[in-house]
Amino acid sequence: MTLKFGVVGTGTLGREHIQRITNAISGGEIVAVTDINQEAAKKAVDQLGIEAKVYENDLSLIQDEHVDAVMVTSWGPAHKPTVLAAIEAGKYVFCEKPLATTADGCTSIVEAEIRSERRLVQVGFMRRYDSGYVQMKEAIESNDIGRPLMIHCAHRNPVVSETYTTDMAITDTLIHEIDVLHWLIRDDYQSVRVAFPKKTTHALKHLRDPQLVTLETKGGIVIDVEIFVNCQYGYDIQCEVIGEEGIIRLPEVSSIVMRKEARLGTNILTDWKDRFLDAYNQELQDFVDSIKETGEPRGPSAWDGYIAAVTADACVRAQKSGEKEAVILKEKPDFYRKKARKAV
Amino acid sequence: MTLKFGVVGTGTLGREHIQRITNAISGGEIVAVTDINQEAAKKAVDQLGIEAKVYENDLSLIQDEHVDAVMVTSWGPAHKPTVLAAIEAGKYVFCEKPLATTADGCTSIVEAEIRSERRLVQVGFMRRYDSGYVQMKEAIESNDIGRPLMIHCAHRNPVVSETYTTDMAITDTLIHEIDVLHWLIRDDYQSVRVAFPKKTTHALKHLRDPQLVTLETKGGIVIDVEIFVNCQYGYDIQCEVIGEEGIIRLPEVSSIVMRKEARLGTNILTDWKDRFLDAYNQELQDFVDSIKETGEPRGPSAWDGYIAAVTADACVRAQKSGEKEAVILKEKPDFYRKKARKAV
Amino acid sequence: MTLKFGVVGTGTLGREHIQRITNAISGGEIVAVTDINQEAAKKAVDQLGIEAKVYENDLSLIQDEHVDAVMVTSWGPAHKPTVLAAIEAGKYVFCEKPLATTADGCTSIVEAEIRSERRLVQVGFMRRYDSGYVQMKEAIESNDIGRPLMIHCAHRNPVVSETYTTDMAITDTLIHEIDVLHWLIRDDYQSVRVAFPKKTTHALKHLRDPQLVTLETKGGIVIDVEIFVNCQYGYDIQCEVIGEEGIIRLPEVSSIVMRKEARLGTNILTDWKDRFLDAYNQELQDFVDSIKETGEPRGPSAWDGYIAAVTADACVRAQKSGEKEAVILKEKPDFYRKKARKAV
Amino acid sequence: MTLKFGVVGTGTLGREHIQRITNAISGGEIVAVTDINQEAAKKAVDQLGIEAKVYENDLSLIQDEHVDAVMVTSWGPAHKPTVLAAIEAGKYVFCEKPLATTADGCTSIVEAEIRSERRLVQVGFMRRYDSGYVQMKEAIESNDIGRPLMIHCAHRNPVVSETYTTDMAITDTLIHEIDVLHWLIRDDYQSVRVAFPKKTTHALKHLRDPQLVTLETKGGIVIDVEIFVNCQYGYDIQCEVIGEEGIIRLPEVSSIVMRKEARLGTNILTDWKDRFLDAYNQELQDFVDSIKETGEPRGPSAWDGYIAAVTADACVRAQKSGEKEAVILKEKPDFYRKKARKAV
Repeated sequence: MTLKFGVVGTGTLGREHIQRITNAISGGEIVAVTDINQEAAKKAVDQLGIEAKVYENDLSLIQDEHVDAVMVTSWGPAHKPTVLAAIEAGKYVFCEKPLATTADGCTSIVEAEIRSERRLVQVGFMRRYDSGYVQMKEAIESNDIGRPLMIHCAHRNPVVSETYTTDMAITDTLIHEIDVLHWLIRDDYQSVRVAFPKKTTHALKHLRDPQLVTLETKGGIVIDVEIFVNCQYGYDIQCEVIGEEGIIRLPEVSSIVMRKEARLGTNILTDWKDRFLDAYNQELQDFVDSIKETGEPRGPSAWDGYIAAVTADACVRAQKSGEKEAVILKEKPDFYRKKARKAV
Repeated sequence: MTLKFGVVGTGTLGREHIQRITNAISGGEIVAVTDINQEAAKKAVDQLGIEAKVYENDLSLIQDEHVDAVMVTSWGPAHKPTVLAAIEAGKYVFCEKPLATTADGCTSIVEAEIRSERRLVQVGFMRRYDSGYVQMKEAIESNDIGRPLMIHCAHRNPVVSETYTTDMAITDTLIHEIDVLHWLIRDDYQSVRVAFPKKTTHALKHLRDPQLVTLETKGGIVIDVEIFVNCQYGYDIQCEVIGEEGIIRLPEVSSIVMRKEARLGTNILTDWKDRFLDAYNQELQDFVDSIKETGEPRGPSAWDGYIAAVTADACVRAQKSGEKEAVILKEKPDFYRKKARKAV
Repeated sequence: MTLKFGVVGTGTLGREHIQRITNAISGGEIVAVTDINQEAAKKAVDQLGIEAKVYENDLSLIQDEHVDAVMVTSWGPAHKPTVLAAIEAGKYVFCEKPLATTADGCTSIVEAEIRSERRLVQVGFMRRYDSGYVQMKEAIESNDIGRPLMIHCAHRNPVVSETYTTDMAITDTLIHEIDVLHWLIRDDYQSVRVAFPKKTTHALKHLRDPQLVTLETKGGIVIDVEIFVNCQYGYDIQCEVIGEEGIIRLPEVSSIVMRKEARLGTNILTDWKDRFLDAYNQELQDFVDSIKETGEPRGPSAWDGYIAAVTADACVRAQKSGEKEAVILKEKPDFYRKKARKAV
Repeated sequence: MTLKFGVVGTGTLGREHIQRITNAISGGEIVAVTDINQEAAKKAVDQLGIEAKVYENDLSLIQDEHVDAVMVTSWGPAHKPTVLAAIEAGKYVFCEKPLATTADGCTSIVEAEIRSERRLVQVGFMRRYDSGYVQMKEAIESNDIGRPLMIHCAHRNPVVSETYTTDMAITDTLIHEIDVLHWLIRDDYQSVRVAFPKKTTHALKHLRDPQLVTLETKGGIVIDVEIFVNCQYGYDIQCEVIGEEGIIRLPEVSSIVMRKEARLGTNILTDWKDRFLDAYNQELQDFVDSIKETGEPRGPSAWDGYIAAVTADACVRAQKSGEKEAVILKEKPDFYRKKARKAV
């Protein structure tokens, strides 16, 4: 049995996912595509050598009876209507972040999914599938380091384009830590604060860079995340969990070790796209496999998308206020509680 | 287009490859299986949930017109006749090591393949697909460390079963270094020598363990390989290439870093099957992809299988003689020379 | 020429310094000792096998014409009068931290030293002599990583005694980071803030542990220091400076690397006294050498002692207020400005 | 009590030892010097600012009643007569390697020392005092890794001068491994073999470089040492002991860790003189301390000097023969057996 995908949005990420499903993972197939730019959609089909029908828009694609699952890789603001229409049609959804650009948008998706009475939606938070984070999760769940008390993180890019604004440090960058950390420690955020250290001369005038975000959970865990998107030296993700009896740290990216010219060292990646290559494959394989095995996806849910949206909103407020801002989440619906048991 | 496999041998490795082709890689499918134990073959089909015809023997499976490629995962001594029959039938062959148990057996396969006028055979030397070795290959080819002069290796298992004999340190264990190292440095072996250090008390009476193999290439590179199959602490593969301007070393297996109980450290694998999981997937994906793209496999060839057989023979002689033994290879056929250009 | 020391305070640290001067460094000698407990002072002389006169109190010891330098290793609250009396007598002073228990006490010492018209006092902030911090200082001064923007630190002890109170996390523990960090980046503190993450169950009821201190400098550098004094696993000092073009990190303590029982790792110290053994020797050797060479000590000055006191006061206020607290320093006297040029 | 040294040979190493004894360690003093070049000796005294009598030759220096210990840092061939004369005069001797340039020379010193009825001589094999080797020794003696079976070593220099010849890879370079390894494992050498891998183009015409030396001990431990003195990238000493239950490895030289320009790494030394700085201090401090405490030095003995000479001779023979050469040692005199108990 093959899970048949219709892809909404054939930009860079959309095309990469098409290639993954076509050439790298097992059990999925692209049967339909659409894009706001019809020519781009046609070109994608031709260049990637797939046999897929090109639709005029997301709604007609969703109605195609051969489409089992909708891959949402369009522009962020377009996600919500596509996801809602797909749920309405009873189709599975793999939606890239953000699930919706507002907390309210996420809420409406959550409500629609609950009404549909089964989990249909998975959000593209791929870090949960990264081997390093998986090992950290296992160590925490095995109580290897006791109860977590603090987490120190860093999210560094060598450089960003001039369209990158101060709030995108939250909505585009921190968003991944927001998702993966609450999953890692099974705890919810309570408040956030943002500090702005001395600005790097490598950042453009309009951008505050670096930033230092502090999140506190309901359980009292304090998390600090350095965001530094003009760090020059590479793309570098660091995460260290301080537990009552020990500490675990994310592995460095695997690299041969070289001794040369009085230096002993390894390579650091410079392109973020290379960092989670394997995790991207794993999240799609798991989406396909879990639907085959249980009839529902088991990855990051619409509720996780909602948590990310509410937390990111609080962080953006904190950027402006300079104060501690509360993260006010609704109560978690039972619907997502019971599903959590099978969650990755 | 899907490459359809017939599997000869449904033991542990056969079943693992069936699962990889079915669930983990793209573009392959199992359509037929056979095993010397028919019941085992049937059970494999049932348990793995595949739709594959069960054949009485390799010859009838090879004749199935739906079979594009024969996966040879039977007992070593059975490889040669299956491979020869598959070549005769014009089918692709993915053959686990050894290609044949003797150099003469390998030669007859090489000759059959040359007569067939195209490359059909790939041997299961998966290390060439391991990310660490691939990085080392790239560094050497980019001249990052100058010309290689020496290589230091170690191949360690925590423990071996009592059926493991002294010569198997060569034919089952060193065989992987034999293949991957000559590929890494594009050089052929000229002589070998084996020393027996103090024996570990953890080895059974009949087994010499550890062993220290020294190989010298035609180009003068000296390679030492420690083989230690009762090292207790883990499964550990080390490789360090000493070049004229620098040194590169295989990465340690990626692991979270833990601080606990006055120790800072990472995990070492204990099961060899976990070490090259990703490389196994890659070699099969590449077998499928290269046949789709070029009509021929581009991985380790029958000639590589021949080199491994001749070199292993010399090492086994050296175990007995205590002297330096020559590795006498025929001249490389043009057929494999030109293919080498596209090789991994 | 030998620098002759009189030691005030023969407790643990006093005896260790006596041994260092007697047996490990060159050019110093203990000629006099005193302690509030006369018997303890006599016992120290006997046990350590030194030829030193035992005095009734610090004032009479200071008056001994053979005493060139006074080593102050008494109880913290006793430091100020001894240091002032030594300065008055024109003697050199090596004073363990704190220089005085209040900022005002430090100020009176600074003023006395300025009146004396030459530097006499060195404070026992040994980290500046640690090889790792020295390497970091050199890298920053060589502009290897560009301008520093942030610093991430951790100061962890396996366990503390029950006399250790929440404010001692500042006055006994953080005090070392306070000194070494402003020296490292040549910047002064402007404000501090303290957060209390989830408390470890390994801390006694009266103690808040861990703590997270954030210091901001006049230049805008943001420093976060995790203080965790019941971390169980070891004594561990971490320091990472984030610069505009790169990052440097303090080395782990040098240790053999062991592979055993499926783990690859190094040792972490458990006793803080072992961490800076070499730095203790170096600071005393430098005290002796600089006085021989220039007539003045060149290590951490009375002014550095004052900075530490003012900053620690602000941190203790911040522990109580939960708010950002200002660090209000007087203007640096010219006397210490010019001396800074020769500083370590 | 101060141990008074007379120094024979004021070349580079002699002057460095003079500075160590004068400025860095405790309990020693230089009271006399001599050099075959009298002017050089006078200049050393002036430049180093020491108060030492300049003698015409070693014999007159040895007769100075103020001289307790003779530091032999002259040209290798001159060592033997100085050492013998010092023993004759009942003076302590700290002799840089080689103790004598021939095994027979060493034997005559051993016999003279035995006749003197107490240990007087320490040979300058400083590696035994290196913190890394000391940690390895402790781990082995604590049985952390079980019985040693193999040792893998490397001794690499960035470059050597044109006076460096093929046999000096043994007598100047390997000599340190020869000493430290038999001490580490408490075993004696039985045979040696030397192989010559492909020559680096960075070596001059007359020099075979790299070399690969294999030593086998009486207990069956096999040791391989890569000697590579034009490795370009740095001065690098590697040592790994393979035991029955685990493996230990010498630490890398302590260095800050830098992330910059897509690389994560540490510094490698380039000057061999920086590698064992601390060990040089430690060996001299221990020479002084052990004489003070027990009346005899406890470091590397004249017998260790003899072992090094015999083993080096065998290695040089093996360079020429290409065969396995025997290391034929006399039986260890009881005199050194009993002393071994106190040995470092």
